[in-house]
Amino acid sequence: MDSRITEHAQILVDWSARIDDGDDVVVSVGEGAHKLGVAVAEQLGERGANMVVTYDSEEMDRAYQRASDRNFETDPEFEHGLYAEADSVLSLRGTRNTSAGADIPEETQTAFAQAREGIREARLDTDWVSTVHPTRALAQQAGTSYEAYQDFVYDAILRDWEALAEEMAQLKDVLDAGSEVWIRKGDGTDLTMSIADRTAVNSAASVAYDSHNLPSGEVFTAPAATEGEVNFDVPMTIRGTRIENARLTFEDGAVVDIAADAGEDALRTIVDTDEGSDRLGELGIGMNRGIDRVTDQILFDEKMGGTIHLALGRAYKACLPDGEEGNQSAVHVDLITNMQTEDTVLEIDGEVIQRNGHFRWEAEFEG
Amino acid sequence: MDSRITEHAQILVDWSARIDDGDDVVVSVGEGAHKLGVAVAEQLGERGANMVVTYDSEEMDRAYQRASDRNFETDPEFEHGLYAEADSVLSLRGTRNTSAGADIPEETQTAFAQAREGIREARLDTDWVSTVHPTRALAQQAGTSYEAYQDFVYDAILRDWEALAEEMAQLKDVLDAGSEVWIRKGDGTDLTMSIADRTAVNSAASVAYDSHNLPSGEVFTAPAATEGEVNFDVPMTIRGTRIENARLTFEDGAVVDIAADAGEDALRTIVDTDEGSDRLGELGIGMNRGIDRVTDQILFDEKMGGTIHLALGRAYKACLPDGEEGNQSAVHVDLITNMQTEDTVLEIDGEVIQRNGHFRWEAEFEG
Repeated sequence: MDSRITEHAQILVDWSARIDDGDDVVVSVGEGAHKLGVAVAEQLGERGANMVVTYDSEEMDRAYQRASDRNFETDPEFEHGLYAEADSVLSLRGTRNTSAGADIPEETQTAFAQAREGIREARLDTDWVSTVHPTRALAQQAGTSYEAYQDFVYDAILRDWEALAEEMAQLKDVLDAGSEVWIRKGDGTDLTMSIADRTAVNSAASVAYDSHNLPSGEVFTAPAATEGEVNFDVPMTIRGTRIENARLTFEDGAVVDIAADAGEDALRTIVDTDEGSDRLGELGIGMNRGIDRVTDQILFDEKMGGTIHLALGRAYKACLPDGEEGNQSAVHVDLITNMQTEDTVLEIDGEVIQRNGHFRWEAEFEG
Repeated sequence: MDSRITEHAQILVDWSARIDDGDDVVVSVGEGAHKLGVAVAEQLGERGANMVVTYDSEEMDRAYQRASDRNFETDPEFEHGLYAEADSVLSLRGTRNTSAGADIPEETQTAFAQAREGIREARLDTDWVSTVHPTRALAQQAGTSYEAYQDFVYDAILRDWEALAEEMAQLKDVLDAGSEVWIRKGDGTDLTMSIADRTAVNSAASVAYDSHNLPSGEVFTAPAATEGEVNFDVPMTIRGTRIENARLTFEDGAVVDIAADAGEDALRTIVDTDEGSDRLGELGIGMNRGIDRVTDQILFDEKMGGTIHLALGRAYKACLPDGEEGNQSAVHVDLITNMQTEDTVLEIDGEVIQRNGHFRWEAEFEG
């Protein structure tokens, strides 16, 4: 066993999910995640946790859904009970084909997801953590070799999470105390937004921080009253469409102009989805320095140290004051801008927090 | 998809498990059984059944058990509930290494099994069916190529089960009405036993026949008062030891002499296990003509048309009159004799039922 797989399992079980003796743990194993499954089983055995292993097969899901008449039973109790009784759910993703579900009709997928809303909620009520085992299919999607992709994934995951959580706490303090965010870049980006009365989340890849993805490494909050222009120079694929250099203009918090070198129509469709899809639900600041390249996998890209992402659509409850609903929408689509370029500045209440991708507490920072 | 895999899934879901719309079905997928899993998912989707997929990974089990301190919690509720609520459990076996669990200490395996007795019972209380997907590891164990092994497995599984069930019903009638069984072979086998007041099971690979293995194809009952000698000329591996030409002598129902060309000591250990391990718990008559070769896999070998197997140890409740316990033992070890040889006769109450491997209702039978 590659020792990195064992380390990954240790971080998942100890740092991320905080598994204790006697915990009831569902381990969901993707088609390509077998080896990580074995390593996680070893860690769970050592800690005296109980384990039920489910098989998260995209090919079985596809066959089942396509063969169905779409009249799915709502939250079958034998499955709902499994999650309702569990303490933790560890999802070990690792696809063998990122297009495995491409020919499931969208109405079918929607009907299936709707019928399982209660199961999803029961799952989200546990100390769940989602992580990814490197596969050839994911390497292919990232446009790199299998070996290089494994290095990439483990650089992102095998961090000193305690130290990173402390660093991120500094940024959370600044955001929690701050009111006005100003993002400027040499490419014309000049954007302001309000974060007054909002609470930032220190997403440190652990349920102890209410953070459920491994890797993580971002601090995020819910902005309002966005004004100005922003250029998203990190390319990505959204719903199968390549998006390049998306440029959005905001007035009174809403998108008023859309342009892009590629994928402009797809972006327009997203912005036009509903009431809240033309407003920002999230301002996220990537702080994971182990992620040093774009792989077109949002779980990694949005955490990259020296990037900022903004999501159109739904805001996270954790960022909002009690009783406030925040921006609501069926969508939550992240777009990323790279701050590791010349003449970029992130200011909060007039103070420079980050310049050219370096935070003010980093050695490379030029004040 | 190999059309035989689809046919296998259809037989499993329709004939064996009798799955209906709305049934709650747990599908357990072995490490090497993915393709059958996909085919079964399609069938379940078509029938409107609900599906939870578990991953039956021997490598994960091994890692978990070996890392543990053996203090396993008894029947964790989140797992017990899954089986207690399920209507059916379909176990798709298909190992990638028949020795995957070889280095789990036996005390650990025993402790694990004991802690999960309630889960096992809940599972057995469902309409469960166990079947096997052909893998390279199983082909290797059978001493043949992967292609030839697939042919072998599908010949055994893709039968006209309805017709076979009818044929087996004839033999069940004979056994139910009969009292005295006499088995003779040219190799010195000369064995009598009583089956008076016993009920035979028509094991037709369907829950409708209280038969839970696919393939099946045997009729079995619980004998008593065994007398004489029997030669088991079908070689097999029991607990890792090769057994060849085992010869047992019975007096007053109990083994009084043991000999074998190979594995005599292992046989002796089995016979000496406990009170009931020196008596027969089962007389089984193989009737699956799709199985035409020995593969050292008991699930197949004991069903082979033209063979008879006798099990040392535990008897099945279904064969016994109400209130009678039958032979009790911790072991149930099947040994097989080939009746497709010269001068073999199976007589019941003085009537020849089978000669040289042919039943009296078969064209080849010489009365």
